[in-house]
Amino acid sequence: MRYDVFGLENPLIDLLVQVPDDFLARHDLKKNHMMLIDQNRHAYLLKHLDGFPIQTAAGGSCANTLLGIAQLGGRSAYCGKVGRDANGEEYIRKLEAGGVDSFIQPDGSVTGSTIILVTPDAARTMNTFLGACQELTAGDVPLDVLKASRMLYITGYLWDTEGQQEAATAALRTAGDEGIQVAMSLSDPFCVNRHREAFMDILDRYVDFVFANREEALELTGTDNTHQAMQALRKWCGGAAITLGASGAYVTRGDEQLYLDPIPTEAVDTTGAGDAFAAGMLHGLSSGLSLFQGGRLGSLFASKVIAKVGPRLEGDVRALLAPVLDDPRP
Amino acid sequence: MRYDVFGLENPLIDLLVQVPDDFLARHDLKKNHMMLIDQNRHAYLLKHLDGFPIQTAAGGSCANTLLGIAQLGGRSAYCGKVGRDANGEEYIRKLEAGGVDSFIQPDGSVTGSTIILVTPDAARTMNTFLGACQELTAGDVPLDVLKASRMLYITGYLWDTEGQQEAATAALRTAGDEGIQVAMSLSDPFCVNRHREAFMDILDRYVDFVFANREEALELTGTDNTHQAMQALRKWCGGAAITLGASGAYVTRGDEQLYLDPIPTEAVDTTGAGDAFAAGMLHGLSSGLSLFQGGRLGSLFASKVIAKVGPRLEGDVRALLAPVLDDPRP
Repeated sequence: MRYDVFGLENPLIDLLVQVPDDFLARHDLKKNHMMLIDQNRHAYLLKHLDGFPIQTAAGGSCANTLLGIAQLGGRSAYCGKVGRDANGEEYIRKLEAGGVDSFIQPDGSVTGSTIILVTPDAARTMNTFLGACQELTAGDVPLDVLKASRMLYITGYLWDTEGQQEAATAALRTAGDEGIQVAMSLSDPFCVNRHREAFMDILDRYVDFVFANREEALELTGTDNTHQAMQALRKWCGGAAITLGASGAYVTRGDEQLYLDPIPTEAVDTTGAGDAFAAGMLHGLSSGLSLFQGGRLGSLFASKVIAKVGPRLEGDVRALLAPVLDDPRP
Repeated sequence: MRYDVFGLENPLIDLLVQVPDDFLARHDLKKNHMMLIDQNRHAYLLKHLDGFPIQTAAGGSCANTLLGIAQLGGRSAYCGKVGRDANGEEYIRKLEAGGVDSFIQPDGSVTGSTIILVTPDAARTMNTFLGACQELTAGDVPLDVLKASRMLYITGYLWDTEGQQEAATAALRTAGDEGIQVAMSLSDPFCVNRHREAFMDILDRYVDFVFANREEALELTGTDNTHQAMQALRKWCGGAAITLGASGAYVTRGDEQLYLDPIPTEAVDTTGAGDAFAAGMLHGLSSGLSLFQGGRLGSLFASKVIAKVGPRLEGDVRALLAPVLDDPRP
C-alpha cells in the first residue's frame, strides 16, 4: 500500500494574527468564539489586518490529524478543494512540507480560511470562511490514490453541501468495494444535529471506526449516557472512540471495550485535542498497535497539544510520544 | 436466603460534634485530616468535648454500605466487635434502627469510634480510635448466618490484626465452601500498601467482585494505568469496580467491561462516596440488575451522598434513586 491514510475534508488555511484587545471590540468580535463568516466579512477582516504579521498553517480537522500521523512516521494523502490563489498555493505547500501528499485540485474560487485572532491573554477568536471547500465534487476525488491506501478518513463537515456529500459518498463506496477501512470524525455537535439521520446511515453502512467527543456521541444517539451511546456506535461501526475531555476516553473495537486514563496536563489551549487523539489512534491502529496502546498514543498526543497554544506539535513528535511508542504493554 | 449481604468489618461509632475553629488549634488538630488515635488521646478529646452536644451514627465503611442497601430494600446482616459500654449499645441500636440485623458480640474492651469535629466552615476533622474492633476473632463470626446469605462483603481493614484476619479468613472459607459470592473493598491506599501480597492472594482465591478507587487499584497492581489495573483485578476476581472520582467509574463482570458517566453534582463532602457506590452496585447485582444499571445505581447513590455533609442519606432513598431504579434500560 502506498498510503496508510487517505483523508478527505475541508482544507482551511489557518491565518494566525496577534492583535491587541481593542481590535476585537472595534470589529465586533466576541473573544474565544468560533464564528462562521461569509466572503464579505472575510475580506473585511483581512483588510483591517493589513500590516499585521500573519502566520499560516494547513488547517482543518483532518489535515491536523494527517500532519500528526506524518509526524509519527505514517504516510498519508489528502484531498479537498482550495482556490486558485496565494492561500491555496500556500496551503498545499504547508501540507507537503508537513509530510502529507496533496491531491488537492486548486481550481476553486476563494481558498477557505480560519482567521485566528490571538489577543495578549492568549485567547483565540476564530473566524472560519469555508469558501472553495464547499465546491468539492465527486470528480475531485482521486479514487486510484484511495485504492492504494489502507484507510479512508473523512469528517462530518463534508455533509454540509451536496457536492461534498457526493465526493464523500464516492470515496465511501470505493472503500466499501475495495475492503478499505473507513474512519470518520463526527466533527462537532451542531454538525451532528444537522445530519443525524445521514450519519447514522453512513456509520452503519461504511464506517469501521468513529471518533466523537461525549457531546457529539450523545447528540447522535439521543441518549443521556455515554455507555449507551457507545453501544450504539459499536453496533454500527465495530470500532469507536468517545473522548471524555479531562476524564479520559472510552474506546472499543471488536470484543474489546475499555476506558483510558487522561494524561495529567496543564491545559493551555484545547484546540486540536480531538484531531491529535485521532492521529495517535489511527496511527496506532494502522501500525498494528493494540486498541489500548493506540488509545494511549492518542491520549498522550492530545495531552501534548493542549499543553501549548495551537493545534499542532513542533519538533520530534516521536521522541515526545516515546513513553507510549516504546512501551511494550499489549 | 435470609440475607442478601453479610458484612464483616470494623464497627466504629461516629461521634459528630460541632466545634468552634479554635478547638482544633487548642487541641493540636489539623483541619480536614483523618488521624488514627490511641485510647489516651480518645479519652483526652472526649473529656474536652464534655458539654458539647454529640450526634451518633453507626459508622465504618461496610456499615455505611449495608445501611444503604437496607434503604434500597435489601436485607443484610453485620458482624464486628464492640465493647461492653454505652457506645457499643448505641452502635447496635443505630444499626438495627437503620434496618441492618446485628450479629455483633458486644464483649470487647472500648468500642471503637470516629470523633468527627465539624467546624463552622463545614470541614470535617476525623479522629479514629479502633478499640474493640481489633479484638474480633474467628469465633465471633456466626457462620450459620453467613451460610444463610447470598453474599459476603468484607473490607481490607480487617487485615490489620491477626485475630481480624482469622475472622475474615474463616468467613471467606465458608463462603468458598458454600458457593456464596464474595465482595471486598480495598479500604484505602495505605491499607493496600500494608497488605498487598495478602490482598492479591485473597482476591485471586475468594473474591468475586472487588471495589477500589483508582489510587487503591494502582497501588495494588503496581501499574500507572487504570486499564491495566482493571485487567489484573478482572483476572483475579472476574468482577471489579474502579471508581474514578469526578470522572465516573470503570466496571467489569464476566464478559462485560464498561465506563460509567459521573452524575453531575455540586460536591459538598465526599465522605462515604465509595461506600454509597458499593451499596448501589451490590444491591443492583444481588437484585438481578445488569452491570450497567448496578453501576448507575451506585453512581447516583454516591452523587446524592456527596451533595450533602456526612456519609449517609436520610429519607426515602428509593424515591431519590428512582431515576435508575425505574429505568428499564438493560
